[in-house]
Amino acid sequence: MNAENRADMGFANLDLDRKRRSGFAEVVFCQGKDDHFLQDIFKRLCEANGEVMGTRAAPSQYQAVQSVLPEATYDSVSRIIKIEKKDKPRIGNIAVCTAGTADIPVAEEAAQTAEFFGSYAERIYDVGVSGIHRLLSRTDALNRANCIIAIAGMEGALASVIGGLVSVPVIAVPTSVGYGASLHGLSALLTMINSCANGISVVNIDNGYGAGYIATQINRLAEKGKTNG
Amino acid sequence: MNAENRADMGFANLDLDRKRRSGFAEVVFCQGKDDHFLQDIFKRLCEANGEVMGTRAAPSQYQAVQSVLPEATYDSVSRIIKIEKKDKPRIGNIAVCTAGTADIPVAEEAAQTAEFFGSYAERIYDVGVSGIHRLLSRTDALNRANCIIAIAGMEGALASVIGGLVSVPVIAVPTSVGYGASLHGLSALLTMINSCANGISVVNIDNGYGAGYIATQINRLAEKGKTNG
Amino acid sequence: MNAENRADMGFANLDLDRKRRSGFAEVVFCQGKDDHFLQDIFKRLCEANGEVMGTRAAPSQYQAVQSVLPEATYDSVSRIIKIEKKDKPRIGNIAVCTAGTADIPVAEEAAQTAEFFGSYAERIYDVGVSGIHRLLSRTDALNRANCIIAIAGMEGALASVIGGLVSVPVIAVPTSVGYGASLHGLSALLTMINSCANGISVVNIDNGYGAGYIATQINRLAEKGKTNG
Amino acid sequence: MNAENRADMGFANLDLDRKRRSGFAEVVFCQGKDDHFLQDIFKRLCEANGEVMGTRAAPSQYQAVQSVLPEATYDSVSRIIKIEKKDKPRIGNIAVCTAGTADIPVAEEAAQTAEFFGSYAERIYDVGVSGIHRLLSRTDALNRANCIIAIAGMEGALASVIGGLVSVPVIAVPTSVGYGASLHGLSALLTMINSCANGISVVNIDNGYGAGYIATQINRLAEKGKTNG
Amino acid sequence: MNAENRADMGFANLDLDRKRRSGFAEVVFCQGKDDHFLQDIFKRLCEANGEVMGTRAAPSQYQAVQSVLPEATYDSVSRIIKIEKKDKPRIGNIAVCTAGTADIPVAEEAAQTAEFFGSYAERIYDVGVSGIHRLLSRTDALNRANCIIAIAGMEGALASVIGGLVSVPVIAVPTSVGYGASLHGLSALLTMINSCANGISVVNIDNGYGAGYIATQINRLAEKGKTNG
Amino acid sequence: MNAENRADMGFANLDLDRKRRSGFAEVVFCQGKDDHFLQDIFKRLCEANGEVMGTRAAPSQYQAVQSVLPEATYDSVSRIIKIEKKDKPRIGNIAVCTAGTADIPVAEEAAQTAEFFGSYAERIYDVGVSGIHRLLSRTDALNRANCIIAIAGMEGALASVIGGLVSVPVIAVPTSVGYGASLHGLSALLTMINSCANGISVVNIDNGYGAGYIATQINRLAEKGKTNG
Amino acid sequence: MNAENRADMGFANLDLDRKRRSGFAEVVFCQGKDDHFLQDIFKRLCEANGEVMGTRAAPSQYQAVQSVLPEATYDSVSRIIKIEKKDKPRIGNIAVCTAGTADIPVAEEAAQTAEFFGSYAERIYDVGVSGIHRLLSRTDALNRANCIIAIAGMEGALASVIGGLVSVPVIAVPTSVGYGASLHGLSALLTMINSCANGISVVNIDNGYGAGYIATQINRLAEKGKTNG
Amino acid sequence: MNAENRADMGFANLDLDRKRRSGFAEVVFCQGKDDHFLQDIFKRLCEANGEVMGTRAAPSQYQAVQSVLPEATYDSVSRIIKIEKKDKPRIGNIAVCTAGTADIPVAEEAAQTAEFFGSYAERIYDVGVSGIHRLLSRTDALNRANCIIAIAGMEGALASVIGGLVSVPVIAVPTSVGYGASLHGLSALLTMINSCANGISVVNIDNGYGAGYIATQINRLAEKGKTNG
Repeated sequence: MNAENRADMGFANLDLDRKRRSGFAEVVFCQGKDDHFLQDIFKRLCEANGEVMGTRAAPSQYQAVQSVLPEATYDSVSRIIKIEKKDKPRIGNIAVCTAGTADIPVAEEAAQTAEFFGSYAERIYDVGVSGIHRLLSRTDALNRANCIIAIAGMEGALASVIGGLVSVPVIAVPTSVGYGASLHGLSALLTMINSCANGISVVNIDNGYGAGYIATQINRLAEKGKTNG
Repeated sequence: MNAENRADMGFANLDLDRKRRSGFAEVVFCQGKDDHFLQDIFKRLCEANGEVMGTRAAPSQYQAVQSVLPEATYDSVSRIIKIEKKDKPRIGNIAVCTAGTADIPVAEEAAQTAEFFGSYAERIYDVGVSGIHRLLSRTDALNRANCIIAIAGMEGALASVIGGLVSVPVIAVPTSVGYGASLHGLSALLTMINSCANGISVVNIDNGYGAGYIATQINRLAEKGKTNG
Repeated sequence: MNAENRADMGFANLDLDRKRRSGFAEVVFCQGKDDHFLQDIFKRLCEANGEVMGTRAAPSQYQAVQSVLPEATYDSVSRIIKIEKKDKPRIGNIAVCTAGTADIPVAEEAAQTAEFFGSYAERIYDVGVSGIHRLLSRTDALNRANCIIAIAGMEGALASVIGGLVSVPVIAVPTSVGYGASLHGLSALLTMINSCANGISVVNIDNGYGAGYIATQINRLAEKGKTNG
Repeated sequence: MNAENRADMGFANLDLDRKRRSGFAEVVFCQGKDDHFLQDIFKRLCEANGEVMGTRAAPSQYQAVQSVLPEATYDSVSRIIKIEKKDKPRIGNIAVCTAGTADIPVAEEAAQTAEFFGSYAERIYDVGVSGIHRLLSRTDALNRANCIIAIAGMEGALASVIGGLVSVPVIAVPTSVGYGASLHGLSALLTMINSCANGISVVNIDNGYGAGYIATQINRLAEKGKTNG
Repeated sequence: MNAENRADMGFANLDLDRKRRSGFAEVVFCQGKDDHFLQDIFKRLCEANGEVMGTRAAPSQYQAVQSVLPEATYDSVSRIIKIEKKDKPRIGNIAVCTAGTADIPVAEEAAQTAEFFGSYAERIYDVGVSGIHRLLSRTDALNRANCIIAIAGMEGALASVIGGLVSVPVIAVPTSVGYGASLHGLSALLTMINSCANGISVVNIDNGYGAGYIATQINRLAEKGKTNG
Repeated sequence: MNAENRADMGFANLDLDRKRRSGFAEVVFCQGKDDHFLQDIFKRLCEANGEVMGTRAAPSQYQAVQSVLPEATYDSVSRIIKIEKKDKPRIGNIAVCTAGTADIPVAEEAAQTAEFFGSYAERIYDVGVSGIHRLLSRTDALNRANCIIAIAGMEGALASVIGGLVSVPVIAVPTSVGYGASLHGLSALLTMINSCANGISVVNIDNGYGAGYIATQINRLAEKGKTNG
Repeated sequence: MNAENRADMGFANLDLDRKRRSGFAEVVFCQGKDDHFLQDIFKRLCEANGEVMGTRAAPSQYQAVQSVLPEATYDSVSRIIKIEKKDKPRIGNIAVCTAGTADIPVAEEAAQTAEFFGSYAERIYDVGVSGIHRLLSRTDALNRANCIIAIAGMEGALASVIGGLVSVPVIAVPTSVGYGASLHGLSALLTMINSCANGISVVNIDNGYGAGYIATQINRLAEKGKTNG
Repeated sequence: MNAENRADMGFANLDLDRKRRSGFAEVVFCQGKDDHFLQDIFKRLCEANGEVMGTRAAPSQYQAVQSVLPEATYDSVSRIIKIEKKDKPRIGNIAVCTAGTADIPVAEEAAQTAEFFGSYAERIYDVGVSGIHRLLSRTDALNRANCIIAIAGMEGALASVIGGLVSVPVIAVPTSVGYGASLHGLSALLTMINSCANGISVVNIDNGYGAGYIATQINRLAEKGKTNG
């Protein structure tokens, strides 16, 4: 089997109908995929939906995509490749919070995912619990949101504190930021899963995309209800 | 320090204002608490809110509570002690699904929590993925929900399959059902955290209460929006 | 001890009689072996059996082998180096399924191993459980097989769903596809070992070769029975 | 929800058609289930199939079942409750091997499961690798089998040695026998998953039932082929 | 060897000189020790030092000790058996904080240890981070201390928040309070070890005694300096 | 979001007031931060405090900082970038001990951190427990200290032995030195957390900075008491 | 299969020839074995060898054995049941050391095993590294031994210190003594496996028997050489 | 502190007297040490002992050492740098066994260590348990040894089989050979620690040096007894 066949094979199950069914277009997880496969899948999805987004993209992958889709853009912080329709409305409010500056790449993946799916995202960065006044000074912003995304590595305590401050769901994202006993994010994941605060649920380590997706589901429900979902 | 002092100490921080702030009254986690403490805290919360609920209660704890609050009821499956206001309205729709019959105690904790907080809960039990037709035959019920709670032990695959069938958030609850390499629920937790489906977030092992709480937050947002939250 | 000696030492125990005893010729696990050792062992096995196969080969290892065995071929997806007899019959039917496209390298190792050992392999790729209709649409193909190989990373739920659809053994292969809490495949391995479906057994992470080997054993038994084994 | 409801709920999904579809009647996993549930499910399955089997049953569970199905028998070693049709033919040959005497309960669960499903089982017990002559003296018996079940706790090395002696599939069952670093069977599981021998796949710790099931699938294929399956 | 000999053997190395050397008398870890051993060791230590303390004592162990030392007292919360000199001065200030009421037994072990060694202990209980106002309202008390002991189970985030509020060392004590992914306290331990706040160091799970000991060392240094140590 | 924005964002919460509040200026954790961010943050902190320190810096990061702050120095052992006020007094005594020579980089991070914060540090290196005479010959130096930092990888036993020799607190630092079952420092961390000696608390693997910080807190308390803190 | 059969089955492989082959008679691991099995196996081994030993025996198991072998003795500390030939010579010298008094049961299993196999054992108990003078005062005794057994729970550092003091092999035995992060002995096991001292090898947690066995092998080689082995 | 100082510091505790005390000269663990440090320490040790050995050396480290000690040799398989006295006698017999060819680097480290310390080593390679006849055909060689070193990765079962064949101590060395669930050697380590065979003790993963050291201690005792040790 050569690379061409593999791409064909993959496309056999490409889910172009997903947007109608779930309200969300398919997004490409770029990491580990080869350049030809990415070029093909970006083109097909862009043709089908008029826009396309890929996460976890290396700069070299962006160059490959850009050579076939010159209008594609790349953000080196979030590692997102994107072609986006102009003037898309952004509804509601999702607050995207990080404990430290090192968590920002994951936060940007979450925020830009939410924005691509039509949510308004408010960034509240570097408000870790070891300087609790930083978070408390942003309580108003937290209270405006339909859903909070709380992103933290190391000890991952941010989600619990936020959970106690708000009445909306908190999606907690552990990050691999840290060293030693952080166990590449496993420690933060355990912290968040064991949170003593109510209203917190957790996604995989560094999974900013997943958090942005769920937050958008909740944000849509809050703004438009189920019947408009 | 004796038991009386400990109770006093605990009450010093009893959060009677929580309902106004978050829209949710405080619920008692009974496991490991002594009988006198439970008797006092149930009475105080019932006086403050006109109703009260406790989870993870042993039968002997129920007897202790019942001796001071005769109208308290106990469900041996969910292990919930409860005094509930009559004729509370139940809004929206939360689907509570289990993979097997052994997951039902956790499911009932989730469903009854959601109901206590004013949500309508639809039970869809014993629809594990090893007999996929059981789940597929309930697609209509899944599609009616504002939020799904997917509860499974052993390999915990239920959440991923449901995530692919619906467009609303799925709260996944791993259970400690299983043996050997299930590692008391850790294996199911990892399965759910790694789900390839979108729209899934995870709570602690056996945490039916937490799932019912978050699902109610989402259900309220969907039915009443943020302004009514 | 120098490299030459090491090769001699290794060959002291080279098992040229294995094919007669087990019905399977020895296959070379290339990873970590040096080029001279591979050149020698490929030549000796090819002389003894008229064909030879090596798994987990790097492109540079292929170049080394090809310089002494020019007819050797290399598949960059499966990473298999091979010289194969022409017109070998392929009996029975083994279905090789993957959850995603990233699992295809392991699947090709499994399928090509089964083919090298004389089995017919049917590829059913990218049918992960988060889009269950993809798998269900292939039920006929599943039902034609004497044995199924189910390959999945991340949450690894594919094997359980397949196990509930078929009446033949399912060999589950966890892959290291994923990130964060996938723990390099350990999470998928645990999922599969804990499967609630019957008829599932598991091999090591990414062990496509091992799955192809066992599936061939079963396929031969089904087609020829023990007496022809 | 009371116990009666729970039983009804469970039965809603009781799979009475399974035998026709898979060739295997449903077997009850008794551990953790309450007596009334077991009484009902045993009666229904016995009525549907003319026979019934339950695994992991406590003596008190047997007494409950026996009170409604007096012909039920119980084996305290395998912990199996059973009503079995008389004079069932037993085809083929499955060798059930254990490393030590402490592994025999798991082995009997495997052997009796295979027998209940119509396979002939040959017991080869206490042949652990620390006294290798014990195993080697049974080579003839191993060679008669269509499939081997290799059961071991502690270091779990039995499967690898058997894998090197036979040409048929080996189903490896780690057991929780051991102490300290055996980690309740996890060490043996890892040993078996990492086996350097070909033709070995692994089921969950102490899962004698699962091994007996798969071995029967293979044994049937070997004796009757797929068309008769 | 019988129980008497074992006791003698143990006493051979009983360290009656420890108080002079380290400033701390030897304290008995009662858990797992037999009654005769405890009776002897309590008597010898009490004779040598005029007072004696034992931790992790079961009620039945207290009865055994009391039968030979009638003036011994027992606190069922901290599980400490104690004979203490009257009117001992208590210097400085150690703040002992807990996240929840379930952490109080460990906190009392810490506080009473510190008091036995001559420190003044201020209890600040049930100030977990999910209701951050509870902790913030006690900032004055925190600022009076020479050393803080922060005790928490579940997600264990308390230490990080306190670390950001004070300028003195924080001794963090993870507790085994929690369930599921709390892994019997391991999750809280990891949280605390990974704390992003400065000035935090960690002792073993539930090790209230160890925290009280170190906090007293620090408290003495702050009050009396090294020369008076 | 581009790199400039990210830096701005980070600086929004830069804590220039920390020194007044805690007595410690903010120190930069360089690892994983990009060059422009480091250049900006070093400049701002140096302007605010007249000195600045960064840990875990790569040589290339030093070059970037030096290009904007030419007086910055770099120590390749500790990986610390520093601009330090001249003639700072150093009070008290902190003993920094290592088990082996491979632990010295972590020790230098600890010692130089303590020195930057105004403590006197005495280095006692390569005194691991497998040659106990090396440590015992330095007992006088240990006894001069207000606080000991005990740094060890592999089996991490150094802290326990020191804990038995001194009467002041021991801050234990596990290092990632070792291989195989050292699990990148996790084994040493467990050793230290389980220490049977009193007066030991533990920081994260390789966290020399954290140990130097806490030791300075204790050293200040010992020299100046709380009122001067 | 009933209990009688199981015993017969076990005996089929009872290794009465082991003593001639290895120089060591078979010893019974009693834990988890039923009373009838123990009665039979003790009688047969005692008849074959004139003496017999069983480890990990519960008091009730001793009563069962004693009812058929009245001369059997039981030591409640080591949990060993034994009938031993009189006046057996004991050669050489094995030093059995423990860190604490709680490790003595494992130490007695080791020492009495060595004695049963004809070695002289010198007990050196309660010499843990947190009071290093206790161990150093016994250096002469350590130097007399052909082999040292070092037994410790909690942090398990004893083996490393002894390894640096002697020139003979040290067999390290981790024990399950401890709590919290001791992980039931796993922490001590890791400490010992990672020892920086030379001449240390490790057996399973609490495996006093295994240590006594190996130490006797070494002791015999030292006293009698291989030719007399 | 610069590199020169670090080297000096290290040498402060260089143990030139070790050979007299323990009978073993100090050996250098090269991995992670810088070139100047290695050049100095090799020269000093060579001057003191007339010979010197270093393990885990990279080719570039050899070049550095050779530039100051031209007579130094390097073996790329074992990664040992060595200057060895001529015509050293080699006593006794140590059998060094491996499961596969990939374990040979660790085996050569063990064998050459034993040889450097004056033992005769017999190599028995590639005798893994999946082809048990390979090991059984070498029984005579095993029986000649005073001590066996059993080296295996993957499932690590070799030690148990050898333990059942011989009456002398077996030093088991797990290797990091394998992939997936081998967990970098941890699985093989657990296998060996849990061995059901007697007379087996274990060293760290890939620790060929440690095994060669202990085996030499045992070999010396067997050949010369304690008095000549």
